[in-house]
Amino acid sequence: MGVGRLSASSYRFDNVVIRSQAAVVGPKEGEGPLGKYFDRIWPSELNHHTSSEEAELALLTEAQNLALVKAGVEWSQVDLVMGGDLLDQLIATDFAARGHQRPLAGLFSACAVFTESVGLGAMIIAGGGPTVVLAAASSHHMSAERQFRYPIELGYQRTPTAAWTSTAAGACLLVEGRPVKEPDLIIESATFGRVIDWGTKNPNDMATAMAPAAFDTIKQHLRDVGRDISYYDQVYTGDLGVLGVKLLDAMARQEGLDWSSYLDDCGKSLYDTQRQDVHNGGSGPGCSASVFSGFLCRQLRSKEFRRVLLVSTGALFSPTSYKQGESIPAIAHAVAISRMN
Amino acid sequence: MGVGRLSASSYRFDNVVIRSQAAVVGPKEGEGPLGKYFDRIWPSELNHHTSSEEAELALLTEAQNLALVKAGVEWSQVDLVMGGDLLDQLIATDFAARGHQRPLAGLFSACAVFTESVGLGAMIIAGGGPTVVLAAASSHHMSAERQFRYPIELGYQRTPTAAWTSTAAGACLLVEGRPVKEPDLIIESATFGRVIDWGTKNPNDMATAMAPAAFDTIKQHLRDVGRDISYYDQVYTGDLGVLGVKLLDAMARQEGLDWSSYLDDCGKSLYDTQRQDVHNGGSGPGCSASVFSGFLCRQLRSKEFRRVLLVSTGALFSPTSYKQGESIPAIAHAVAISRMN
Repeated sequence: MGVGRLSASSYRFDNVVIRSQAAVVGPKEGEGPLGKYFDRIWPSELNHHTSSEEAELALLTEAQNLALVKAGVEWSQVDLVMGGDLLDQLIATDFAARGHQRPLAGLFSACAVFTESVGLGAMIIAGGGPTVVLAAASSHHMSAERQFRYPIELGYQRTPTAAWTSTAAGACLLVEGRPVKEPDLIIESATFGRVIDWGTKNPNDMATAMAPAAFDTIKQHLRDVGRDISYYDQVYTGDLGVLGVKLLDAMARQEGLDWSSYLDDCGKSLYDTQRQDVHNGGSGPGCSASVFSGFLCRQLRSKEFRRVLLVSTGALFSPTSYKQGESIPAIAHAVAISRMN
Repeated sequence: MGVGRLSASSYRFDNVVIRSQAAVVGPKEGEGPLGKYFDRIWPSELNHHTSSEEAELALLTEAQNLALVKAGVEWSQVDLVMGGDLLDQLIATDFAARGHQRPLAGLFSACAVFTESVGLGAMIIAGGGPTVVLAAASSHHMSAERQFRYPIELGYQRTPTAAWTSTAAGACLLVEGRPVKEPDLIIESATFGRVIDWGTKNPNDMATAMAPAAFDTIKQHLRDVGRDISYYDQVYTGDLGVLGVKLLDAMARQEGLDWSSYLDDCGKSLYDTQRQDVHNGGSGPGCSASVFSGFLCRQLRSKEFRRVLLVSTGALFSPTSYKQGESIPAIAHAVAISRMN
């Protein structure tokens, strides 16, 4: 079959597996509740690099290389690299490609780019195109903060709804084929979101901007695959955080759906939000990329979970659009992952 | 067959056609040699909009809508919109998606994003995924200049190698199927480029940064499809401009290849480079998107051309990477288009 079309938004696949994955994070992420699941934890935010942009590039490169090493795959065997980051002109992803020299398809959907990469990657593999795709995403707290908000050195006070852009990178190696051995994970389906904008304008509250997009995509996905939410052990949104998960749960309740026991969030899980002073939780493309590649893949492989729906969420605003008084559109893309038995 | 794999970089398709296309441009582009080929020419750069970002959004939306109208296709029939622009966080593409409400896959490869969109769009259609994909890209002179260089109002002196970021948008409607009627154009194949960086650091000379990437992708493409360059009536690079085409031709000559009569460039064609004071030529994602959607598609449909290879080129730098002393990596993606008979 390869690709099965469920709707304009959703497609299922029967021949794409995640062969390996890797997550590399910063010190704060390493001290969080998921610390033990990550492959590598940097001792400092910069880890001897001279700029935060250079550090993000190194972090992403490390995660990409590690995913390949874990699968015993050489760079020359990778057909296409797909992915993105939060930096203007995708410089982390682009500069990493200067090193690996493989064909590159740069993607952007802010913090939703990891599931966009996995979903599109699975679709082109299932359709008979590339057979090995590396899907990866990254973010770095310092490079993102100074680009979107203020330089770290300013030490400005963060609002209670603010998220903490994570220093994290995650990479998954997607390959064509049926699952052949125990650890293989199956990419069952993908749902590509539409842009939802309820008119919120607060750049320090991404949760309120993104929760409606997550709700829209999850509803669309469940309708398209013809399943109840209980088909999944857990639905992990990208970085809605503490507030966003509550909003999402409330939206579901308004439509008579009790999703509460199935909802969790990568940004909420990445840190101890109380102890680590991160307010609403983690964000950034590296957030869902690392929580999925580090924590969720292990939970699936160790049979803690059988099926997970990952719904990365992205706020599609720029410092320019914000200053021009524009509202903040959001998008959410979803991928359903299961273990082979 | 659907998708035929030629190499890690190149894929051919036998069931994807361009059903319609549209190009909308600014006044300077309308006054250029290709003016008569564009669907609409704006009377002014802002065309009554209050900011250049808002103008770019309107320009892109107009091209997208027009491509649909020309095909008699409703927005509800579009499965996926793919594309990008040059603005930080892809705000033109994202904000347009707020209007059309269709699933969106945002892409970024700077001025190479139009061929990335067409190539990936063709691959997922051929693979049995979406059946209708709208591929689109835009740029606006004023929004790009102030983001990458200086505000227009400053009136700074441009260097001889500088390109003129075009105010232009192009959109192509890709649909699954065999060509059914005269005007259908076939997407024969696509080649996804790798990142090439020869170490150039001058942000006012994109031609020198991008020509090696174009050369690499064209060579890879011809090797993969097993053809001589003469298989194509013309190879149009994206925005190498006057200088870049000379460099590309010289690189080919160094390897004993005489490509000179087959090479042309969208950025060089869009303006009368002497009369219109654009120095090296046009640039921006809208450049190859509009020249292809306006001029090249018409030349193919009117049987002036039988086969064209479009090789959009992108310089993958940001104002931050430039200030940090980084060199300018570049990428080129190619799509081969032919008419049905």
